[in-house]
Amino acid sequence: MKSPKKLSSWRAKIHEIIYGTHTPAGKLFDIILLFAIIYSIVIVMLESVKSLDNKYHDFFNISEWVITILFTIEYILRIISVSKPRKYIFSFYGIVDLLSTLPKYISYFIVDTHFLSVFRALRLLRVFRILKLIRFVGESNNLVRALKNSRSKIFIFIFFIFIISIILGTVMYLIEGPENGFKSIPQSIYWCIVTLTTVGFGDITPQTTLGQILATFIMIIGYGIIAVPTGIVSAEYTASKEKTPNLTNSACENCGADIILSDAEYCRKCGHKLHK
Amino acid sequence: MKSPKKLSSWRAKIHEIIYGTHTPAGKLFDIILLFAIIYSIVIVMLESVKSLDNKYHDFFNISEWVITILFTIEYILRIISVSKPRKYIFSFYGIVDLLSTLPKYISYFIVDTHFLSVFRALRLLRVFRILKLIRFVGESNNLVRALKNSRSKIFIFIFFIFIISIILGTVMYLIEGPENGFKSIPQSIYWCIVTLTTVGFGDITPQTTLGQILATFIMIIGYGIIAVPTGIVSAEYTASKEKTPNLTNSACENCGADIILSDAEYCRKCGHKLHK
Amino acid sequence: MKSPKKLSSWRAKIHEIIYGTHTPAGKLFDIILLFAIIYSIVIVMLESVKSLDNKYHDFFNISEWVITILFTIEYILRIISVSKPRKYIFSFYGIVDLLSTLPKYISYFIVDTHFLSVFRALRLLRVFRILKLIRFVGESNNLVRALKNSRSKIFIFIFFIFIISIILGTVMYLIEGPENGFKSIPQSIYWCIVTLTTVGFGDITPQTTLGQILATFIMIIGYGIIAVPTGIVSAEYTASKEKTPNLTNSACENCGADIILSDAEYCRKCGHKLHK
Amino acid sequence: MKSPKKLSSWRAKIHEIIYGTHTPAGKLFDIILLFAIIYSIVIVMLESVKSLDNKYHDFFNISEWVITILFTIEYILRIISVSKPRKYIFSFYGIVDLLSTLPKYISYFIVDTHFLSVFRALRLLRVFRILKLIRFVGESNNLVRALKNSRSKIFIFIFFIFIISIILGTVMYLIEGPENGFKSIPQSIYWCIVTLTTVGFGDITPQTTLGQILATFIMIIGYGIIAVPTGIVSAEYTASKEKTPNLTNSACENCGADIILSDAEYCRKCGHKLHK
Repeated sequence: MKSPKKLSSWRAKIHEIIYGTHTPAGKLFDIILLFAIIYSIVIVMLESVKSLDNKYHDFFNISEWVITILFTIEYILRIISVSKPRKYIFSFYGIVDLLSTLPKYISYFIVDTHFLSVFRALRLLRVFRILKLIRFVGESNNLVRALKNSRSKIFIFIFFIFIISIILGTVMYLIEGPENGFKSIPQSIYWCIVTLTTVGFGDITPQTTLGQILATFIMIIGYGIIAVPTGIVSAEYTASKEKTPNLTNSACENCGADIILSDAEYCRKCGHKLHK
Repeated sequence: MKSPKKLSSWRAKIHEIIYGTHTPAGKLFDIILLFAIIYSIVIVMLESVKSLDNKYHDFFNISEWVITILFTIEYILRIISVSKPRKYIFSFYGIVDLLSTLPKYISYFIVDTHFLSVFRALRLLRVFRILKLIRFVGESNNLVRALKNSRSKIFIFIFFIFIISIILGTVMYLIEGPENGFKSIPQSIYWCIVTLTTVGFGDITPQTTLGQILATFIMIIGYGIIAVPTGIVSAEYTASKEKTPNLTNSACENCGADIILSDAEYCRKCGHKLHK
Repeated sequence: MKSPKKLSSWRAKIHEIIYGTHTPAGKLFDIILLFAIIYSIVIVMLESVKSLDNKYHDFFNISEWVITILFTIEYILRIISVSKPRKYIFSFYGIVDLLSTLPKYISYFIVDTHFLSVFRALRLLRVFRILKLIRFVGESNNLVRALKNSRSKIFIFIFFIFIISIILGTVMYLIEGPENGFKSIPQSIYWCIVTLTTVGFGDITPQTTLGQILATFIMIIGYGIIAVPTGIVSAEYTASKEKTPNLTNSACENCGADIILSDAEYCRKCGHKLHK
Repeated sequence: MKSPKKLSSWRAKIHEIIYGTHTPAGKLFDIILLFAIIYSIVIVMLESVKSLDNKYHDFFNISEWVITILFTIEYILRIISVSKPRKYIFSFYGIVDLLSTLPKYISYFIVDTHFLSVFRALRLLRVFRILKLIRFVGESNNLVRALKNSRSKIFIFIFFIFIISIILGTVMYLIEGPENGFKSIPQSIYWCIVTLTTVGFGDITPQTTLGQILATFIMIIGYGIIAVPTGIVSAEYTASKEKTPNLTNSACENCGADIILSDAEYCRKCGHKLHK
């Protein structure tokens, strides 16, 4: 993340503040950005509560404009201070940063009266600002690796859930029929997935004896096969952990004993002082 | 999957296209089949939505006939191009392929007015076409082996769930009784499984204090014992992964027995030295 | 399970039939018993369905008497054929066997008109007959050992669930109050366990914003801590499995290589014929 | 847990009774305390049931005073008998012990008529007494260590659940809208977490086809990602079990650092040779 030499000194400084995390200014910028994101998300959420929107409409509107302008400045500074702007603009974060600012501007130019619902939808796009928070999450390499290794197996697993749901959903539609709330096959499949994943809303429930027996069967399947993704991730995670010994797994220079606890200052086997 | 020498050249070619996956024609056939299956499933599902069926009834009907005729041709070609047709016909896929085509023909010959409900049920059998998709799923050997090894334990586990559900369901029927929605013992057992598997529809809920205490007990059991199948599959999956580092799906040249372990140097069935 | 020498020959024979599983007579007895138990359970369950009871009351009653008499004979034969009858009578199975027969007799002597509800409850005790089925389940030693080893940890886990539920249930009672369905602290705790275990009946749901925020918190706790018993059982099960190498884990007499697959007839390392 | 030498003999004796668990008096004290806590919790809970409170109000009130006075005496004795009272007072247990007694006294001095709701809240604070029970739970070191090691990963996991819920909740609000029960974005997010954690109350359910498709998607995500915390805890628990065969909770005689690994021969903090 070191700023390339080509950048002029003030651009290098901006780069350090925006992308860097080690200087006080860089840290301050990150903290301000963090709160701005959370604040903007909270505003988007509260705006949707009618009673609050009626009371504080102007406050919400001004807050939105302030945040949008701040994010616009941030977006422009990011483009300026980076040596390859095009790469940033089309990167994941670049698109998220752009999407965070656009909706408010579009809402200004479009006359609300005619495009009210589209306008409303665009405003809510701002919720994607939350993806900016991912910047602040430290890497969890083992976890991601375990998920990546499990990917194909989890895909097969979800595929089988769909096949089971389509078949059993169709059978439930046949047994229960529209008169008991299973109005169509897609809805029966929806019910089947609700049941299989043990969510169980209860808005649609089997009424016939045969339907309840099949529902019992579906529930036990769902209860049992939850073990499958768990087993896969668990095993893959264990495997990926074993492959990559964590940092505290060093050895004593004197006697070669393994040092397990990272706060060790002396070897627990020979008493040798550890150099760290 | 090599086509036997007895087949005439055009039959061998058809065999290559239908069963093979390495030639461009074979790949194209697989992709067309894949989309035809998904298309036919979507049609079956949408047909059941009344509002859509009223609008697009003719389109659905024609689509159905086209797909049925295509699958019929595929079925006949599969029988012709295989050297042992009988084996294919009575295999799992053979039966699925037949069941995919039959219902539409039967629906043509049966007069709808009298056998409407039977006719309706037969039409839905076509959903089993989705099982054809399994052909396209790559093998997940470790997963299947883990499930096979866990089979007997998972059976015992489900058996105990049934015993617990029958006893606790009966007790709940005694405590709550028909006046609180627990109309009969089978329905109480149904409720007990709904609760134990943490589905919790909420169509039937305990109303008495004693019933709620027992329900609490059932829920905690259900929440706790979900650990059991997960633990089993997880452990078996880890074990099956560790035991078999790189599985080879080859066969012994001498006796034809399958060679599962890649470090095998001799066939474990006939003692023949393997060439690798 | 060898019958002691003191028993007279006919008692030894009965013992062999009832307790033994290797002779044809013993096997036949087990199969008959298995079906009799399942049949009696089905009868108990169907009797509770009013529409069926009205139609087939006499059939159910006669079936009950036949089974009760059969189980009584079985109970007496078990006492006679065993060398230490007292030990059997007070054993788990002995009590279950007695409880399987008693209720029907008691129902005969008690006049229904006055003690109808007690009588009804006694009849349902017969569902405990299902515990007899446990005899037929093979031992699953690893599983039981894993559960035994996890016992104290699972107890602590359930204990913490109760503490969390009591505290959060009380807080929910304070926030929501009787006007939103949280009528008393015990009921709030009941709701809390329903939510924590991810059952979620939906008969009581938080209505206030604060209540919904706390509910969200409870749900995520519940969703997260389900990992704890699973992790425990999984780890213990893996450990107990490693400790007790399964039967197929033998070694070649010739070269000492481990034999993993139980159907191996030749060592896969040196080609030596295995003696089994 | 040895009482320091500075304490006078009667203070040492009290210390032994209250903190010790090996003398008969210490054991008796623990058992009495255990029952007093459980009794007081049951009283708090039953008081909230209106029908019971009307009947037994005086009994509940007197019971409360007796327990409060007992807990006050215990609290004072604990302060007296300990050599560093300040450390106890500000420790976790010290605060719990104080909070167990205060509410009843405050409720006495505050006139109920005006501060009724505050008064009611304070009374219920006594439920925190249940935290005193934690004293009686044996240490489960492996489990706690596994949870501590998983902490950061579980935090990231919960953080992603929130991001997913905020985005999908907003989308659901857009699709379903206030007319189908998704009144505002916060409530949609609440619904999303209810569904993602597989709780599924069913008080709010999607009504549109698009909403049901997205709901299906949310449910399968929730059903799948439950594997993640389970896999983490399971792997960490296995690892923490393997790494530390027999944990010793002793301390270095020289510098007082805790010795965690039982195979340690030298203190890892000061290099002092340990006598075992």
